[in-house]
Amino acid sequence: MSKPNSAYSELRQDFEKVGHIEAAQATLFWEARTYMPEGGNATRGKVLSTLTGLVSESMHEPRLGDLLARAEEEECTSLEAWEAANLREMRRKWRHETAIPAKLASRLSELSSTTQAVWEKARANNDFASFAGPLSALVALLRDVAATKSQAFGVSPYNAMLDEYEPGLTTETVDPIFDDLSAFLPPLMQRIMARQAEEPAIIPLTGPFPAERQMELCKRIAAMIGFDFHHGRMDTTAHPFACGIPGDVRITTRFDPEDLTSGIMATIHETGHAMYEAGLPADWAFQPVGHARGAAMHESQSLLTEMQAGRSVQFLPVLFAMIRDMFGDGSEAWSNANLMRIYRKVGPSFIRVDADEVTYPLHVIMRYRLEKALLLGEIEVADLPAAWNEAIGHMLGIVPPTDTLGCLQDVHWSAGLIGYFPTYSIGAVTAAQLFAAARRQEPAIDAGLAHGDFSTLVGWTRANIHSQGSRFASSAEVVEAATGRPLSTEAFKQHLIARYLEE
Amino acid sequence: MSKPNSAYSELRQDFEKVGHIEAAQATLFWEARTYMPEGGNATRGKVLSTLTGLVSESMHEPRLGDLLARAEEEECTSLEAWEAANLREMRRKWRHETAIPAKLASRLSELSSTTQAVWEKARANNDFASFAGPLSALVALLRDVAATKSQAFGVSPYNAMLDEYEPGLTTETVDPIFDDLSAFLPPLMQRIMARQAEEPAIIPLTGPFPAERQMELCKRIAAMIGFDFHHGRMDTTAHPFACGIPGDVRITTRFDPEDLTSGIMATIHETGHAMYEAGLPADWAFQPVGHARGAAMHESQSLLTEMQAGRSVQFLPVLFAMIRDMFGDGSEAWSNANLMRIYRKVGPSFIRVDADEVTYPLHVIMRYRLEKALLLGEIEVADLPAAWNEAIGHMLGIVPPTDTLGCLQDVHWSAGLIGYFPTYSIGAVTAAQLFAAARRQEPAIDAGLAHGDFSTLVGWTRANIHSQGSRFASSAEVVEAATGRPLSTEAFKQHLIARYLEE
Repeated sequence: MSKPNSAYSELRQDFEKVGHIEAAQATLFWEARTYMPEGGNATRGKVLSTLTGLVSESMHEPRLGDLLARAEEEECTSLEAWEAANLREMRRKWRHETAIPAKLASRLSELSSTTQAVWEKARANNDFASFAGPLSALVALLRDVAATKSQAFGVSPYNAMLDEYEPGLTTETVDPIFDDLSAFLPPLMQRIMARQAEEPAIIPLTGPFPAERQMELCKRIAAMIGFDFHHGRMDTTAHPFACGIPGDVRITTRFDPEDLTSGIMATIHETGHAMYEAGLPADWAFQPVGHARGAAMHESQSLLTEMQAGRSVQFLPVLFAMIRDMFGDGSEAWSNANLMRIYRKVGPSFIRVDADEVTYPLHVIMRYRLEKALLLGEIEVADLPAAWNEAIGHMLGIVPPTDTLGCLQDVHWSAGLIGYFPTYSIGAVTAAQLFAAARRQEPAIDAGLAHGDFSTLVGWTRANIHSQGSRFASSAEVVEAATGRPLSTEAFKQHLIARYLEE
Repeated sequence: MSKPNSAYSELRQDFEKVGHIEAAQATLFWEARTYMPEGGNATRGKVLSTLTGLVSESMHEPRLGDLLARAEEEECTSLEAWEAANLREMRRKWRHETAIPAKLASRLSELSSTTQAVWEKARANNDFASFAGPLSALVALLRDVAATKSQAFGVSPYNAMLDEYEPGLTTETVDPIFDDLSAFLPPLMQRIMARQAEEPAIIPLTGPFPAERQMELCKRIAAMIGFDFHHGRMDTTAHPFACGIPGDVRITTRFDPEDLTSGIMATIHETGHAMYEAGLPADWAFQPVGHARGAAMHESQSLLTEMQAGRSVQFLPVLFAMIRDMFGDGSEAWSNANLMRIYRKVGPSFIRVDADEVTYPLHVIMRYRLEKALLLGEIEVADLPAAWNEAIGHMLGIVPPTDTLGCLQDVHWSAGLIGYFPTYSIGAVTAAQLFAAARRQEPAIDAGLAHGDFSTLVGWTRANIHSQGSRFASSAEVVEAATGRPLSTEAFKQHLIARYLEE
């Protein structure tokens, strides 16, 4: 164990303070999207930017770099495994914070925020031209950032960006997975569509479905999954997200009174994220090693909950019964068979966030390829609309009639996020492999789900994923430790075949 | 105007950052009392304590003391009036933060928080004995703090404590005002009670009055007063308060479904506080001079809104009509005459926060005298119950049957607040003098109130009080500038006589 006056114990105190500041940021970010009056926006922006500056300043203090070096020298003689992992994560956080000069970081944050505002208007007006200039400037800056980090870390520019969101993930891992899926999924989609075309037509559910009642239902479902409302909340917002700090996890969601299905599934998805946050190791609260492993692992937990368990043939009847109790009118539309067809409908669509689990990865793969090309200068912002439409046409056989339904639909690039998109589908592949392993290791999971009992499944994810925090250096290691094999597309492909062609 | 590289301009940047951190604290404090899940308490405590530590650290930096000294040298040649006032307020904040050693400050914060927890239990169980030990330890520490500040500031120990809440207020001002009131109010109370005894008996309003409908009504009233919901919110909490940061002001309140009157008036009171925050000078947002002048001035704004304007013979009929529209049943209980008797009932009671405006100052005056004696070591904590009961008996002619209804009722001392109590009644006296001056200067105020139009009154307070921030060195100066005379009890006494014996 670390000695009380070691460099490591000093670092632990410093990083705890940083953890507290970041917890303040998380709550204020959540509050800005839930309860803050609109007029509070300008102040909130300043407050959050000052807090970001405080974290950055404390990371840039020369003292911290010295402490890290000293702690790494002390390490082999004095640190336990968790402490050594914590030190590794401190170094990682420090590297990302200090790799680029403070001026570049603050220009990036400024430009991201202004470009995002331009994007919002451009999307609303289907006006790519107005967006191209600001985005080009932002991309130029991101190329700088990537080049600087690439040099500092000794990895390729795109890998340097990826590493910020999902440590250790590289194009060398992503490319073969995405190549495999982009060959496998389009013909699979065709086969599923052909099969679904033979089924009875879907009877639409007719609303309205009041938001308060959807919320009531969703709170019941979240509690059923294991979400602890004594240490958390659920509220509505424009763009659902979950965020957690130790002992206090918030789910946000939204409900369309005309559409029953999307809000409920979005809530189950966010509940999966929230369960990860709630299950992180309490002993390492506020320390770098106490954080979730990465964005792909996070997405694996939301998709494991939503797509693997939530839409399983075991759980869906339980969910349907709850939905019927709340909203049903006794008609055929509310039968298990019709609801099953609604919840498992597969087909091409323009908007990623509305896509089914078969086509979703195709949306992601094309974005991944485009943003990589953009970062490397192989294409320019002006080329995006044409490149986008060609890619989506190739993947899904449809061409967006407007850029709003095409390359203007996502916030990510306008917010300076390059390297984030692939984590969605690496998360989906991970979720399938984890769920398959969990069911092999704990045969009681299926029977539990059939009674709305998630406890065996959550026990497994808590033990194998959540409570591990960032103890392992990468999600790849977590997956291998939990499932006994390296990450591959095998389980994901089997899952889709079983669900859509066999069940 | 200050030069761009002057010591003052550097200070301005430093204090802006402190202002942002304090704004984060304010929002997180508010959130802890409104939406935070109970289980989030431990984390929130740590986060808030780290933010307090950041402010304190930045104040203790030797660099800041040097900058203050340099800026004060530069001052006469280069600063405008508002800038000079800002510099004065920076010095004041710095003096309070640095007067006591960091260790003493952190022990005080720790002990206050533990003593407050003991108090909560003691009050619930009417168990003064369990509270006496912890409170004695806290009082001993507060005597240390007061002695240290007394020496640093060259003022008496109690004045050093007062100065933190209401700059420049001293016992030399408070004593004659409170002596005057403690002689004037008891016989006045008797005369009013005799008069009210001759009136028809009050017909009680029978509920329930659902909290949501009370909230709806209160939002309408707050908007009528001028509260801007685009830059603010209203929510419920256990102990109502208002808090504001630039552009974002929050009112909290609570509603008893069995009691219509207390919740509505509490909301009007908090709206008065909120209007002050909302009207502070935007150009000086986050700077010390941009803050409200002090606790007494703050209370004057809530009481001006609640007691002076809100219960005026002009406005009450407007309020009664709104209440009747929402809750009335057409019976005599809802007549203006009966409602007037309810809203203007005067008489002795045990609990300060439920007291009417005639007896409220007597509650405050006895606390002021007790806490001064306690701080100076003239009495000890063990003497409190007897001293309390004697004082309240002397003031109001009643003796509390339990300490819960006596010396255990207030949170203040357990929270380390000595020097705060007198600001309530200095606020009441100030409110009366300001309202009288406003009506003299703006004869349209009364006619406005009679139509639910607060705009002339709010225009006056905004110009004379709110927009002044902390430009003047003390509330005494603000009052004199606004009313043309020094603070005295005259207007308050006239107000009570007019309202309760003449109207």
